[in-house]
Amino acid sequence: MPSSTEGQTITCKAAVAWKAKEPLVIQDVQVAPPEAGEVRVKVTHTSLCHTDLFFWENEGCFPRILGHEAAGIVESVGEEVTDLEEGDHVVLLFNGECGRCKQCKSEKTNLCAKLKVDASRSTMRIDEKCRFTTKGGQPIHHFLNVSSFCEYTVVEAGCAAKIDPSTPLNRACLFACGVPTGIGAVRNVAKVEKGSSVVIFGLGSVGFAVAEGARIAEAKQIIGIDVNPKKFDIAKDFGVTDFINPRDLSKPIEDVVKEMTNGGADYCFECVGNVDLVLAAFESCHEGWGRTVLLGVEVRPVTLNMHPMKLFDGKEIKGSTFGDYKGKSHIPNLISLYKDKSLDVDKFVTHELAFDKINEAFKLLMEGKSLRTVLHLNDL
Amino acid sequence: MPSSTEGQTITCKAAVAWKAKEPLVIQDVQVAPPEAGEVRVKVTHTSLCHTDLFFWENEGCFPRILGHEAAGIVESVGEEVTDLEEGDHVVLLFNGECGRCKQCKSEKTNLCAKLKVDASRSTMRIDEKCRFTTKGGQPIHHFLNVSSFCEYTVVEAGCAAKIDPSTPLNRACLFACGVPTGIGAVRNVAKVEKGSSVVIFGLGSVGFAVAEGARIAEAKQIIGIDVNPKKFDIAKDFGVTDFINPRDLSKPIEDVVKEMTNGGADYCFECVGNVDLVLAAFESCHEGWGRTVLLGVEVRPVTLNMHPMKLFDGKEIKGSTFGDYKGKSHIPNLISLYKDKSLDVDKFVTHELAFDKINEAFKLLMEGKSLRTVLHLNDL
Repeated sequence: MPSSTEGQTITCKAAVAWKAKEPLVIQDVQVAPPEAGEVRVKVTHTSLCHTDLFFWENEGCFPRILGHEAAGIVESVGEEVTDLEEGDHVVLLFNGECGRCKQCKSEKTNLCAKLKVDASRSTMRIDEKCRFTTKGGQPIHHFLNVSSFCEYTVVEAGCAAKIDPSTPLNRACLFACGVPTGIGAVRNVAKVEKGSSVVIFGLGSVGFAVAEGARIAEAKQIIGIDVNPKKFDIAKDFGVTDFINPRDLSKPIEDVVKEMTNGGADYCFECVGNVDLVLAAFESCHEGWGRTVLLGVEVRPVTLNMHPMKLFDGKEIKGSTFGDYKGKSHIPNLISLYKDKSLDVDKFVTHELAFDKINEAFKLLMEGKSLRTVLHLNDL
Repeated sequence: MPSSTEGQTITCKAAVAWKAKEPLVIQDVQVAPPEAGEVRVKVTHTSLCHTDLFFWENEGCFPRILGHEAAGIVESVGEEVTDLEEGDHVVLLFNGECGRCKQCKSEKTNLCAKLKVDASRSTMRIDEKCRFTTKGGQPIHHFLNVSSFCEYTVVEAGCAAKIDPSTPLNRACLFACGVPTGIGAVRNVAKVEKGSSVVIFGLGSVGFAVAEGARIAEAKQIIGIDVNPKKFDIAKDFGVTDFINPRDLSKPIEDVVKEMTNGGADYCFECVGNVDLVLAAFESCHEGWGRTVLLGVEVRPVTLNMHPMKLFDGKEIKGSTFGDYKGKSHIPNLISLYKDKSLDVDKFVTHELAFDKINEAFKLLMEGKSLRTVLHLNDL
């Protein structure tokens, strides 16, 4: 039985970013029905991450509905959508998987030629239009394939991964960005082995997800690096064994890491997005096999100040998007690790708030007081 | 029965580099017996490569005996040498394998902590002295762990790989540098699969060894890039299917490669040592899986003019020394591929000359007229 709203425009609450750095405005918006290849999803839970913060803090495309780490229930599907139907529980994907392009058909990459993450896109692909409008008819832009700071959103079918409906949706949302990014960097990209040494640059949620992955992989040494010493207490709960605060050092980070790891770390993870830390991570790795995985997004117009012969030291450096997971294909399996309790995501949730407290959630994140705040929608 | 020269200083012919760019001088030199952990080898054949040329053309450590691509027969061994004995046929190794360090014990690297390639070293490690002297007693420096432009040389035991004595030594010498470098880059580093597209930047011996590796791996497209159009005729014999001369182009190399490969190459090999070509190779690779392997040595003080976010396109870039082969452990197996005719190295030998024609051999290489010239020693 189709939902009563199928084919209709839905009026619902959204948190709209109207201007850089100004509080989001909770207001009614109109959400058009999905076009061909799209689905409309009732967003039940969204968390927020530094990427949302970055696009809110900086000049850009406004008005916009931010948010990309979310889960919900399919309300209706557009034409040609065959793999999803009303009532399906889904995790939304900022890095989609069309399933048909050359890249989706390759096992080597999760960068879909059509639906890969693209921060510059702010409309739907099929008609270059927005599905969101104000009550007065002004278009409101989309964000990172998702736009979850709204009770209903429209996404491409390739940007919604169907999950087991027994998964609590206030935890499923965590599988939409930070947790898979960190866990996958360890399991899929670095392929950390038992007994390895691991260094994490930046102890936010992504960094802690790396720690959780390293813990599961039975790394013997997990070194956390952050300028905020408060992170070190939390870090212990994530299995971090050693700590470095760059502000306490009188020599380069890489020298300290090499001393602590008998010549260099087996694996380094850069979770900040700072080119100087990228180079420090690379230098901290052990000659012959050290692997540096980049997870943080460096937004400044910088270049790698590295001689190409450095790449002959047997070290590798590689970026990873979404932990190299293909969203629709792999995220349901990752969630099963959570359900059988081999992966712990509950400890990432430091706060759960009602949707209308979203500006408070932004503040907690900015001040480094939260890891993940889960916002509950549709129960305002 | 020990050789009659064991324990004695040997007087023999060497081609000594006395000054940058001046012809090598064929003269008598004295070669001291091996110290503990060393072996003295009667060099029977040496070829020469661009690295010899580079250290001859540029100011540096003189007098020096260059040469690092060679084979020969063990004349005597120093104390503590247990894995080699007089009469063993060996390939000499510029990138040694001590077999005991952490890096030798790891399967992940061929960079021995003790004996890896080190162009700055010009003496033996145990006593920081030269085993070569002029008849007047002036020390003559060593080069790249080998110094094969001499009828006898002294090397660390870890820098001599014992080979099957049925291998012709005038072909065994090719397994000391260029051929394994290229073949190994394909087989060990890139792991080129059947049906792949491969681009080779620079068609010298290393580039052609890449082509030979790609042919063996059944790559479907092998694109050769060089500014010397004469290389293209030779290249056909090495299985190169398409050619690009950068001097004929009105647009960037990477645009041309992308057009020829339907979006980008699966594998690129930089065999020149030019940072601009390193970047062109990286850009020529296919999003999601393209792998760039660096083989050429960039000697200028340059940096990679690349934004770190480029590393998020799912491409990899990695340098390789000696094709990631561990010399003592792997080169005998590689030679067996030659002996069963699945690897063709005869076609690399464009010239065979007597040792005293070494300056002619340098000229042929400089002018791009030779691939490998094999010099015959000990039959002056």
